[in-house]
Amino acid sequence: MTDTAYARAGVDIATAGRAKEMMRAAVRSTFGPEVLSDVGAFGGLYAADALQRMAAPVLVASTDGVGTKTKVAARLDRWDTIGADLVNHCVNDILVQGARPLFFLDYVAASRLDPARMAAIVGGVAAACRAAGCALLGGETAEMPGVYVPGEVDVAGTIVGAVERDRIIDGRRLRAGDAILGLPSTGLHTNGYSLARRALEGLDWSAARDDLNGATIGDALLATHRPYLAEVGALWAAGVDVRGLSHITGGGLIDNPPRVFPAGLGAVLRRGTWPEPPLFDLIARQGDVPPAEMFHVFNMGLGMLVMVPPEDVARAQAAVPDLYFVGEMIEGSSMEIE
Amino acid sequence: MTDTAYARAGVDIATAGRAKEMMRAAVRSTFGPEVLSDVGAFGGLYAADALQRMAAPVLVASTDGVGTKTKVAARLDRWDTIGADLVNHCVNDILVQGARPLFFLDYVAASRLDPARMAAIVGGVAAACRAAGCALLGGETAEMPGVYVPGEVDVAGTIVGAVERDRIIDGRRLRAGDAILGLPSTGLHTNGYSLARRALEGLDWSAARDDLNGATIGDALLATHRPYLAEVGALWAAGVDVRGLSHITGGGLIDNPPRVFPAGLGAVLRRGTWPEPPLFDLIARQGDVPPAEMFHVFNMGLGMLVMVPPEDVARAQAAVPDLYFVGEMIEGSSMEIE
Repeated sequence: MTDTAYARAGVDIATAGRAKEMMRAAVRSTFGPEVLSDVGAFGGLYAADALQRMAAPVLVASTDGVGTKTKVAARLDRWDTIGADLVNHCVNDILVQGARPLFFLDYVAASRLDPARMAAIVGGVAAACRAAGCALLGGETAEMPGVYVPGEVDVAGTIVGAVERDRIIDGRRLRAGDAILGLPSTGLHTNGYSLARRALEGLDWSAARDDLNGATIGDALLATHRPYLAEVGALWAAGVDVRGLSHITGGGLIDNPPRVFPAGLGAVLRRGTWPEPPLFDLIARQGDVPPAEMFHVFNMGLGMLVMVPPEDVARAQAAVPDLYFVGEMIEGSSMEIE
Repeated sequence: MTDTAYARAGVDIATAGRAKEMMRAAVRSTFGPEVLSDVGAFGGLYAADALQRMAAPVLVASTDGVGTKTKVAARLDRWDTIGADLVNHCVNDILVQGARPLFFLDYVAASRLDPARMAAIVGGVAAACRAAGCALLGGETAEMPGVYVPGEVDVAGTIVGAVERDRIIDGRRLRAGDAILGLPSTGLHTNGYSLARRALEGLDWSAARDDLNGATIGDALLATHRPYLAEVGALWAAGVDVRGLSHITGGGLIDNPPRVFPAGLGAVLRRGTWPEPPLFDLIARQGDVPPAEMFHVFNMGLGMLVMVPPEDVARAQAAVPDLYFVGEMIEGSSMEIE
């Protein structure tokens, strides 16, 4: 097919086919007995037996991307990490409502499909799906010459999970005085990359740096978005009353927590109670970014906040060792960083 | 926020917020009582009561895009049609397995978000969801300067539907001699745009043309992908034994039908038994594309094939007036166009 008019128009069907073959094994490795379809069906088939065993099942679905973290992958030509970023971001997005994942679908697009690059991306998606107990039920790869800047890639994903209706977490039981616990992030996760890249663009991204504890900027920027399914699952298993969960994404520690606060409640977070990865300080210094904006853009070291009654703090920290006590719910509507 | 370091880095939070507000009303208009979440929640919540009333529910999910039809929208600066293309493509993709849609999520990304453009795109998505009885449960808009070519947009979507396990259509009951009926397409639907644009790029896309029955090339290229949910639903309601369905997407009339054929079966389609929209002839002439390749890339006027036993043809055509008798299943493995 390589010499057809279609190929001359910029779409290489044979290349697309080769990439697909390289991804099949990875995708199949995520299939449990619920998956009734093979790779490449029009739609993926997922037997909903588990939903029928629930009292009042609610499906929870979310679509997201990884922002311009893809540009970091492109600059470093490292494609084996953004797949996990994509899946883990989505896992956390439905986890905050109490849902566990059932299945995931991915979308990967570029000006041209490079088979090895695509296999690395989808391999990463599949590995993260396996780790989350989630089937990679389907996906689409698209070659779109003229839409994407050559060499760049975009990835998006959709997750579908389930939760019992009376176990949906929506923050309505939050009270002033509830403790805010924080789960550490690995770095920027998938937000704030436009600002971070601009602040750091003039530096060498491949040199080990003392101010990053010996890591390179490239390594620090590509650190994988951490999923918190295991940790929140451990809190549930320990009987901790999880009243609110906040996934810290775009809008940082300022905009995200209030999304689950009832009217009349705010929060205070106390800086110094959790470790801030040194990458944030480097971005602030290099980009001359004031603290108020840093907290409005980045997670600042906290990828997920967990709100529990004060009497559950000790039990929570016993169940999840790296859970920091970072603040508390307060009367009012402000989101304060002290 | 417009003068912050984040805005200077290429991401305008206020613009993104304005676009979101314009889309909320459209999205909410797709919500039935099953939707428990409001627009903007981390994950959309969909009560799965209907699945519990089924005997053996199977979820069917598919992710897809519209290819470089987005480049046609960009050239003509018309953004109110590709949303319906996206939804309808996905509706058809799960319909061929027998599934009806439950909910949809969209992903829209560009170098910069233009609020009016985004509202037009998402408004189109919402309208098509309403028409399909499908909730627009969530979505994501992403500004990715440096990843997308300025002025271009990409859209992707994920649909989730359901089917009874014993009603899954997979082609296994197909027999030699079964009739192949065809539902007409409106044009290219969402495939073959790279070839079509290359063939037609030198022509005036805004002039009425006699060889397009008075339409412009722009109108013909942007004709909306037709959903076949109502027509296939009418066949089911009429008791027609639908043994196979094929959505004609990338790979055209040659590659798609065999995806549902059991081993040992092929098909023959007889040209002249259905109307071929004049756009295909114009592309073939202007691009010097031979017929074999035309059929390998385009739907050639047939957006969906329906395979039924020969004794059901009359009943099917009575139930759906614009259903053409275009060919039949044959012994062997060939996909022939006569």
